[in-house]
Amino acid sequence: MNLRAGVDLGGTKIQVVVVDERFSVLGQARQPTPTKGKPADVAAAIADTIREAATAAEAETSELSSIGVGSPGDVDDANGTVTSARNLPNWEGSFPLAGALSEELGPRVSLGNDVNVATMAEAVLGAGTPYSSMLGVFWGTGVGGGVVLDGKLWLGRDAAGEIGHMVVKVGGAKCPCGRHGCMEAYAGRGAMEARARELARKGEQTDLFAIMEKRGRERLTSGIWARALVRQDPMAVRLVDRAIEALGAGVASAVNLLDVEAVILGGGLGVRLGDPYRKRLEHAMLPHVFADHRPPRVLLAQLGDLGGAIGAALLASESETVGA
Amino acid sequence: MNLRAGVDLGGTKIQVVVVDERFSVLGQARQPTPTKGKPADVAAAIADTIREAATAAEAETSELSSIGVGSPGDVDDANGTVTSARNLPNWEGSFPLAGALSEELGPRVSLGNDVNVATMAEAVLGAGTPYSSMLGVFWGTGVGGGVVLDGKLWLGRDAAGEIGHMVVKVGGAKCPCGRHGCMEAYAGRGAMEARARELARKGEQTDLFAIMEKRGRERLTSGIWARALVRQDPMAVRLVDRAIEALGAGVASAVNLLDVEAVILGGGLGVRLGDPYRKRLEHAMLPHVFADHRPPRVLLAQLGDLGGAIGAALLASESETVGA
Repeated sequence: MNLRAGVDLGGTKIQVVVVDERFSVLGQARQPTPTKGKPADVAAAIADTIREAATAAEAETSELSSIGVGSPGDVDDANGTVTSARNLPNWEGSFPLAGALSEELGPRVSLGNDVNVATMAEAVLGAGTPYSSMLGVFWGTGVGGGVVLDGKLWLGRDAAGEIGHMVVKVGGAKCPCGRHGCMEAYAGRGAMEARARELARKGEQTDLFAIMEKRGRERLTSGIWARALVRQDPMAVRLVDRAIEALGAGVASAVNLLDVEAVILGGGLGVRLGDPYRKRLEHAMLPHVFADHRPPRVLLAQLGDLGGAIGAALLASESETVGA
Repeated sequence: MNLRAGVDLGGTKIQVVVVDERFSVLGQARQPTPTKGKPADVAAAIADTIREAATAAEAETSELSSIGVGSPGDVDDANGTVTSARNLPNWEGSFPLAGALSEELGPRVSLGNDVNVATMAEAVLGAGTPYSSMLGVFWGTGVGGGVVLDGKLWLGRDAAGEIGHMVVKVGGAKCPCGRHGCMEAYAGRGAMEARARELARKGEQTDLFAIMEKRGRERLTSGIWARALVRQDPMAVRLVDRAIEALGAGVASAVNLLDVEAVILGGGLGVRLGDPYRKRLEHAMLPHVFADHRPPRVLLAQLGDLGGAIGAALLASESETVGA
């Protein structure tokens, strides 16, 4: 049996799957992404998570025919490097991630942009299979986007899909990227947490941080936001309303430019909040969609939390073919 | 000699060219677009302008091998109709424009979306020739966009390129399209004029309307804005600043999504204001461009005022081939 590992390297967690030829998940593992240390420490945590997933699949890492990694930052698969990965600790420079993992574990390692591999996973194996044009919207720590046109990823000059940095408010809030008014400045979980901390410091009441402490976390994870929403915590409700408004405007803008058939909502928050919030996004887009007599379908990512990792395994399998 | 006519049907003017096989302009004519009456009256004005351009080219309309029309609204070339053309008088319904012109003049008539034909003219014959991916931005009565990827127009489900209706300010100004916060609500000449009239009614000083009356116009044409800017009319300066800010944010958003090589600035205002304002757009985009270490080239439309009409002639020539 031809086994592959796929790694979704996120700002919050490292998710690994081990899949068979049909991309069925035989084993999986998840660890929090180190928030301190260096890229080498992140690489060590990835290797450890891959070992754990292989064990869950009752396999050895040496049996894997290849490993794929979906990573944030500037990914250079030819050179095996990841450069200036936002949301990862001390990763401003270039780090040879493929080499480090390959040396540690054995199999050949392919690298791809995290959002692009997740988009292709949904396009090829998930919610996007009926459509040839779609937009993947990954609502998590940041807001990532993938553009599929005529069944293929549109990469531009390699940096296409930065939907989170489409401007929804000229002169608006500061984004973690340093710019102003980006969609991510309102809708990224990182920006939402920063805003929540600021409001709490100013004395506004919220259960968000009490839930966080009770669950032994240091960050407001998607699960914490979901719990606070269930409790109708006013600050959580207000910040998520603001996020949905920004997502609606930004995604509709992308739709007005590209007129795609479908929008697929994934990412930590997208998957965790699920269908009610998919509907809310659809509703928030509508006032801005130009061709509003036939807006695109808005669908939840079908591969859920595992889409990024499965997409990375898909990338690994494609790279084997290309390399052969 | 194989002559073709190309018609650029705009909200303000009807521009016609008669071109040879190499798309060199042999004759041209321009008339104001009727602001009253029905679609049939607009069709009659188009026919009259074509006759005038043919005369200028020392030809008869019956000698034309074909006619192309770039039109606003929903264009259905297969059926020869134009439906709900904004900026044209009483054109909410469907009108058989191709048939009306063909009956009146003789040659076969092809219809295309005005912005798409202008974009392809720049891509094939103008500023875009060195690039395979680009964004056409047509800054006129409205703000139109054309998306060229891998050398071809990306049409989506037929409504791609609505860059003017990308949202640059959630909850922002009302757009002529009825939505809120669109780029066109700040940057479209129609919206700019509406805002200027509103401010003037409130007693704000401006020379805009004095220039308009002196030149015997009923609308604030691009030339009037240009003159007011030369005089540093404060209201004109402020409204154009606001337009440039919105264009910068909206075009940068499109660039962040598609990472195209070039942006081509055309349209009545773009062409009339020329290179200083091309530079201002470039400057206004930069704070919002995600891959700001290599922003796209921002170029002026090379075919200038005639791009739309030449693009329509290009469309006519392509339709001849397809029809053959």
